[in-house]
Amino acid sequence: MKRVFLSVMLILDAICQGHAQQADSLMIRKISDELMANAGCYENLRYLCKEIGPRLSGSVNAQKAVEATARMLKEAGADTVYLQPCKVPHWVRGEKETGYISLANGNRYELHLCALGNSVATPSDGITASVIEIKDFKELDELGEKVKGKIVFFNHPMSPLFINTFEAYRESGIYRGRGATRAAKYGAIAVLVRSLASNIDDYPHTGSTFYYDSFPKIPAAAISTKDAEWLSAQLKKRMQLTAYFKTNCRSLPDEQSYNVIGEIRGTDLPEQIITVGGHLDSWDLAEGAQDDGAGVVQSIEVIRTLKAIGIKPRRTIRTVLFMNEEMGGKGSDAYLASAKQKKEQLIFALETDGGGFTPRGFTLEVTEEQRSKILQWKPLFLPYGVYDFSDDGSGADIGKLKELGTALAGLSPDSQRYFDLHHAATDTFEAVSKRELQLGAVNIAAFVWLVSEYGL
Amino acid sequence: MKRVFLSVMLILDAICQGHAQQADSLMIRKISDELMANAGCYENLRYLCKEIGPRLSGSVNAQKAVEATARMLKEAGADTVYLQPCKVPHWVRGEKETGYISLANGNRYELHLCALGNSVATPSDGITASVIEIKDFKELDELGEKVKGKIVFFNHPMSPLFINTFEAYRESGIYRGRGATRAAKYGAIAVLVRSLASNIDDYPHTGSTFYYDSFPKIPAAAISTKDAEWLSAQLKKRMQLTAYFKTNCRSLPDEQSYNVIGEIRGTDLPEQIITVGGHLDSWDLAEGAQDDGAGVVQSIEVIRTLKAIGIKPRRTIRTVLFMNEEMGGKGSDAYLASAKQKKEQLIFALETDGGGFTPRGFTLEVTEEQRSKILQWKPLFLPYGVYDFSDDGSGADIGKLKELGTALAGLSPDSQRYFDLHHAATDTFEAVSKRELQLGAVNIAAFVWLVSEYGL
Repeated sequence: MKRVFLSVMLILDAICQGHAQQADSLMIRKISDELMANAGCYENLRYLCKEIGPRLSGSVNAQKAVEATARMLKEAGADTVYLQPCKVPHWVRGEKETGYISLANGNRYELHLCALGNSVATPSDGITASVIEIKDFKELDELGEKVKGKIVFFNHPMSPLFINTFEAYRESGIYRGRGATRAAKYGAIAVLVRSLASNIDDYPHTGSTFYYDSFPKIPAAAISTKDAEWLSAQLKKRMQLTAYFKTNCRSLPDEQSYNVIGEIRGTDLPEQIITVGGHLDSWDLAEGAQDDGAGVVQSIEVIRTLKAIGIKPRRTIRTVLFMNEEMGGKGSDAYLASAKQKKEQLIFALETDGGGFTPRGFTLEVTEEQRSKILQWKPLFLPYGVYDFSDDGSGADIGKLKELGTALAGLSPDSQRYFDLHHAATDTFEAVSKRELQLGAVNIAAFVWLVSEYGL
Repeated sequence: MKRVFLSVMLILDAICQGHAQQADSLMIRKISDELMANAGCYENLRYLCKEIGPRLSGSVNAQKAVEATARMLKEAGADTVYLQPCKVPHWVRGEKETGYISLANGNRYELHLCALGNSVATPSDGITASVIEIKDFKELDELGEKVKGKIVFFNHPMSPLFINTFEAYRESGIYRGRGATRAAKYGAIAVLVRSLASNIDDYPHTGSTFYYDSFPKIPAAAISTKDAEWLSAQLKKRMQLTAYFKTNCRSLPDEQSYNVIGEIRGTDLPEQIITVGGHLDSWDLAEGAQDDGAGVVQSIEVIRTLKAIGIKPRRTIRTVLFMNEEMGGKGSDAYLASAKQKKEQLIFALETDGGGFTPRGFTLEVTEEQRSKILQWKPLFLPYGVYDFSDDGSGADIGKLKELGTALAGLSPDSQRYFDLHHAATDTFEAVSKRELQLGAVNIAAFVWLVSEYGL
């Protein structure tokens, strides 16, 4: 009898779940319809890219973006909008960089190059030295002192074999991030790094480099992939080549800046907070459309859409536009510190910083129990192109919330085109598809709404 | 004992299947690595788009494309390359179309327009008449004779609510295809059709219109979505508006043309033929990069990749580049007729004509048994982004093979960006991502290889 009772209970439970999921499915359809038809995110992105433009931490444009997105959040219908202060580093590029390779016939091959973020500048008359090509740190260690007095050219292409291009980025990224110090250890006087790009073109891609230990800070610049291919081909002919380049970047005193935050207060459990966000700053070379204007406007769109449909979430939904993701993460530091100080219950955080490309999934950093719950929702996402729930981190800004026990997720858009334009001048508004951007926002809004209804 | 024996057999079977799938997985990884690193498809696409350009059926460029792709197939390593004759219609656009709306203040609003494929031209001095906006055929039928003597403006936007944009295309496509005849039935003298496009811009999108029944053939042209929005807004102000437009298109006598075919002969079962293909012709306004240069070069790439790895397929793999998909399907008619005449065993056909965007799945037209077999392969495709096997047709060219009992499939790429550029001047080489194109080819090659190994 007990067994029959249990079976009946299980069946009833399944029926109820089925009904609940059907209702959820209808609500997500409503979210999708509203968003695909009436979203403001594409126009907001146009504004960020075209009316403001590059938004490097500490710059006037970054401050303009703070003000503009605070306004956008208000227009989206957030119950509360406020700024959260943070001090950010203020590195500036200065005049456009120049550089060339001197050819045997006296001609010059002009390089398409840019200083890496955080780099020191060359002397004011530039640096001239012979170039040595290095594929990886193993090769560098083997050569050791032979690089002394030279310009080390790190030429580690992003492997085309990874289907997820972020894996190739991680593999090759260490040469941009650590190449300068590793080469300085052996006496190199500067580094030129092949741009972290998945295509071959003339655009240099910037990004942070880091100096560590006590080795000299030497100038670091990226050259375009086309130049890297050319230079490597020349060096393979065993030609001795001399490079010249000049950069003018420097670090100014830290600037006052802000995260921009907008909330819809939860009805039943307002103290339980769901964070959804992207980062407001961008590199200075680009409009920062895919990185991460897209994430910013998608996060604002979550609030607009839920408000437009008249959804009153049970838990608080908070959009956070983080400052300074690209050059130090001071915005996310401030967010964490504030949450700790206020003893906030940050139950869930979702970051969108992989571009506004067509969505494919979410990466998760959650407990086993939370994962099971989320995977039950998988069929709800499938009609909107999301099928892939993997354990592959969450995001640079929300990752810090792990110490609060927050369940974390990251939107995982299709990655094929991202590194063609990431951190380069080609990351423009025009490179974003309106529908792809919106479809990402649909899935983010659906995920946020599900957690606001059911918790984790 | 029998039961134990059966269980052991089932377990052994599962183990063997597991092993087989592991080996298959390794082979597909090999296909992917070779293709992602060394594919020729992107360069072939550049050639088709930039060295040849638009390839309308019957044109000189279409013939150039026949010759170029025959060469590409040879270079890819096909055992046999041959041309399959077909007679194709030869419609020409003539001089660039012009048109405008006359404004009350005497000014003109210039229209971005193009004749629809197969349309008759306006009289040589153009057509001038008052414009009446129609949302759908129901509204047209209600108005009936009120459209007499007028230019009917079909303004049925592609709905943004469909996640798969092909569904919106099908819904709105009937006004391009049948609007002219339906309006002529009530005495309209011409039609202007809102471009079938998912975005708002200045580019008119062409495509076929069809005259049927005995109603007069009236000129049909597409206007850009931006113009359609403007025109609709003006008409909503209850303004009487007069349009003028002039088209110069005409149909010339049919031309001799060809399908281009290349094969790798199967080792064990050469009489069992797997067809993989896209279409060689394009509209005249565009480079036809996504539609369907992508499908052409992906289909050639299947042969190149398998040859490069040294795979000797058990069954015959045949790449077919169909002529005249856009304006009548004479190429696929010829392919079917030839197969029937030669009594070929066309066991499987796969078409790629949804653009070279990041792949998401395959549509299937197969038996239940075949579907089960294919679904067992699903885990093999997942690492390459393909997860969606749906019953949603296959393709315009291979669809005809259904009468031979051929199992059919179509590559299903992400559809978000396709109708921004489909049949418009924006369908250029630059709009294709190399990695997305290649990833589509990886999945096609994997599918074709699996069928060549295991049959269906």
